[in-house]
Amino acid sequence: MANASTSTMSEVESTLQRIHKHPGVLGIIIAQNEGKGTRWIPTDEENPVIKQREAYSTYCSAVAQQARSAVRDLDPLDDLKFMRIRTKKVEIMIAPEKEYTIICIQDPTQAK
Amino acid sequence: MANASTSTMSEVESTLQRIHKHPGVLGIIIAQNEGKGTRWIPTDEENPVIKQREAYSTYCSAVAQQARSAVRDLDPLDDLKFMRIRTKKVEIMIAPEKEYTIICIQDPTQAK
Repeated sequence: MANASTSTMSEVESTLQRIHKHPGVLGIIIAQNEGKGTRWIPTDEENPVIKQREAYSTYCSAVAQQARSAVRDLDPLDDLKFMRIRTKKVEIMIAPEKEYTIICIQDPTQAK
Repeated sequence: MANASTSTMSEVESTLQRIHKHPGVLGIIIAQNEGKGTRWIPTDEENPVIKQREAYSTYCSAVAQQARSAVRDLDPLDDLKFMRIRTKKVEIMIAPEKEYTIICIQDPTQAK
């Protein structure tokens, strides 16, 4: 994350730690806006979500990008703020920020 | 909606009426899965959401389709159930069903 300013980095770190404590959170991935996963929690490489961090980063960044352009086409004064994708098994939350995208995957049956 | 079976149609109608009563709902669009808006509430053509029903249908169907293929690529046994897209101004909810997609646009500041 060489090009992310130090203040953004510590912001990212504290956000990661804070979200990770929520019940049901399976993994959090911070993706640079080209869809490359560069920071994740937990760091355990055997974690099933973390094993797929590159795929999650690429796919979620692409879906967020398509959603953002749709939102702007519908109303040029509007912008994408947050996305929730609920699947049969998990809930994927995507928060697109300026320099990175926060992707949180949780088990909705455990989430409070 | 000639090819939608009659039972699906009445299902669609009752779903439309039920959702439309929720506070903050600006408009609901039922899109055939090729992204063509075929049923909507309110029927008032001057309603800003309804004026853009074709654009909402096309864009939301495309975003849902991309999200669905991402979900399946991540886990072939999983599937997309629901999406929430929060923008600065509105909240767009997308429920992809077999024969159609329900798109609900609401003002999150009025929603309960």
